[in-house]
Amino acid sequence: MSGQRLRVTYDLTCSPGEDAAEKARRIAFEQTVELPDSCVQPDLADRIVGRVEQVGDLDGLRARAVISYPVEAVGNEFPQMLNLLFGNISLQRGIRISKVGWPASWLASQPGPRFGIDGLRRLCRCAGRRPLLCAALKPMGLSAGELARICGEFAAGGVDLVKDDHGLADQPAAPFRERVLRCQEAVERANRNRGGSTLYAPNLTGPADRIHERVKQLRDTGCRAALISPLLVGPDVVRSLADQSGLALLAHPALSGSYFHDDHGIAPEILLGQIFRIVGSDAVIYPNTGGRFPFTETTCQAINAALTGPLGTLRPTFPTPGGGIDVRRVPHWIDRYGNDVIFLVGGSLYAQPDLARAGSELVEAMGKAAG
Amino acid sequence: MSGQRLRVTYDLTCSPGEDAAEKARRIAFEQTVELPDSCVQPDLADRIVGRVEQVGDLDGLRARAVISYPVEAVGNEFPQMLNLLFGNISLQRGIRISKVGWPASWLASQPGPRFGIDGLRRLCRCAGRRPLLCAALKPMGLSAGELARICGEFAAGGVDLVKDDHGLADQPAAPFRERVLRCQEAVERANRNRGGSTLYAPNLTGPADRIHERVKQLRDTGCRAALISPLLVGPDVVRSLADQSGLALLAHPALSGSYFHDDHGIAPEILLGQIFRIVGSDAVIYPNTGGRFPFTETTCQAINAALTGPLGTLRPTFPTPGGGIDVRRVPHWIDRYGNDVIFLVGGSLYAQPDLARAGSELVEAMGKAAG
Repeated sequence: MSGQRLRVTYDLTCSPGEDAAEKARRIAFEQTVELPDSCVQPDLADRIVGRVEQVGDLDGLRARAVISYPVEAVGNEFPQMLNLLFGNISLQRGIRISKVGWPASWLASQPGPRFGIDGLRRLCRCAGRRPLLCAALKPMGLSAGELARICGEFAAGGVDLVKDDHGLADQPAAPFRERVLRCQEAVERANRNRGGSTLYAPNLTGPADRIHERVKQLRDTGCRAALISPLLVGPDVVRSLADQSGLALLAHPALSGSYFHDDHGIAPEILLGQIFRIVGSDAVIYPNTGGRFPFTETTCQAINAALTGPLGTLRPTFPTPGGGIDVRRVPHWIDRYGNDVIFLVGGSLYAQPDLARAGSELVEAMGKAAG
Repeated sequence: MSGQRLRVTYDLTCSPGEDAAEKARRIAFEQTVELPDSCVQPDLADRIVGRVEQVGDLDGLRARAVISYPVEAVGNEFPQMLNLLFGNISLQRGIRISKVGWPASWLASQPGPRFGIDGLRRLCRCAGRRPLLCAALKPMGLSAGELARICGEFAAGGVDLVKDDHGLADQPAAPFRERVLRCQEAVERANRNRGGSTLYAPNLTGPADRIHERVKQLRDTGCRAALISPLLVGPDVVRSLADQSGLALLAHPALSGSYFHDDHGIAPEILLGQIFRIVGSDAVIYPNTGGRFPFTETTCQAINAALTGPLGTLRPTFPTPGGGIDVRRVPHWIDRYGNDVIFLVGGSLYAQPDLARAGSELVEAMGKAAG
């Protein structure tokens, strides 16, 4: 990307009397030495404090500043990258990260997605060009047996992936262990019956001290994929799972909306697009425009571009729009987003009486629309 | 607290045409079954969907809704509690959590702080009534030897705690392992010389797959405390460390400001006060009012109350205001916040030529002001 420095673009909303250049300079100190410049020796300041590369007007209301940081301020570890990006300044107002140029050397040290788009297609044995269909297993409150029955129906319909709803954890109605065993069994049985290859992705989001035992259980049970919510478990937990679990990871955006304000936070295409990809998500679920959540189509397209465009040597991640995707509108979204997409369809499948049939008709429609 | 249901109070900002009661009802479905009510069997809806207990006007502009959830929707695990609180609805607009009534049974299953206020006082051998003084070790970019020298000076001055700056990770200038060894050695030497008991708290925030090896290193080196940023590593990682590491944990608020919007997010006293305490922070650092960050004194007092007030049987957590705390104003803050506080003083100590003397004068002044 842009050499050996981290380049961060901030959109700054200044309060009355606040000067954009001064605000940028303070960010450069706050995110590194956390001291007023009078307390930092000049040679150290040169070496480690962010360098304000550029400050200009953005749209008459906001300013845009670019600050570059030496990779030495990050080191090699992901949590400190996140901290350098937005740690302390999250607590100030009017600062939104709209673009990041990652240092090439740092990016090269991040393994990223283990499967990516091609790898996930191979796992689903869908090497063709059509989008994949992912169904969500719900609702919370059903027993493991009832969820397994639903799983089996989706698999019988040839749905490519069935993921746990991200709110299914280890509740008494459907405890993790029992749910995984029964759902995976139901999917495997349906796969054998129709020669299919539906993947079941249980929700791995759980206690830090039990995740590794659950990875082992998934692998022992034959699962090849899992759902995980990076902001619920910590994004670096996902990075380590991508590195070590051998599972394909579908990332869920739970909590991420906290960062998505017009005048503050981190742009969705940076957080869900680049950051979730860097920590190794093979697919990233995001709320599609027009559904229950307020993303615009421009934002969705920007996320797609960040997930699939060049990013060092990292594999591309599957964009997975969901949240109010209507069965009838899928051809429209293929037209907008292309074929390298997973459509996460929830409620509008459940609104139909026969889940297997609803799933198979939708997969067929997707194949046709993909041409 | 309030029986066996989780009671969440949401302050709702409605867009034109949006109805507060309908918005509350949607939240209750979104955070549990994630399906329209037409797709959920009535008995299941009764059992698992949130129950809107109350909706009323808050201040003419906003509404206030209380929704209660069955503890069965949470289960026993912290990440799902966080998800139920704000997972999906973070992606919607105009929803701010202003109060949480935790289910008594769930709270009883959370161990919380291992040391708490009394335990941390014992570790610092300051059983008296005065506030504690914590200095921050910085800036990033100094070598391990230079940081150790500063650590030693603070310890020579009798500062109670010296914590790594939260941006010190494993950068080449002062790698984690070397920094911990040298700083702890410098502190122990100074402690022996003056019969002191300064605690050094290295920054444990780091890669998920290396934290346990670092805990071991800290313990082998004789460290009894650590700094950690719950939102950089994942709050549940902190919970597991509180349970298993044996270290006193100082929590840093990095990234937390993303949640602190007037019309969206989670109130600081819930996130930094209750949630950080529930995951086991023995002290919680927050940006004091009047410094570089925009908290009001009311917010700071609310955080203090949440950290120290009744919360099941959890130990109280040390409020640790920092970020622009001026040496001269410490007596004022003792007057406002009382004695059970750790003052985190950074820049205004570094502005003085003799760190040991600056530290010892401040500890003395705090003792006097505490009466």
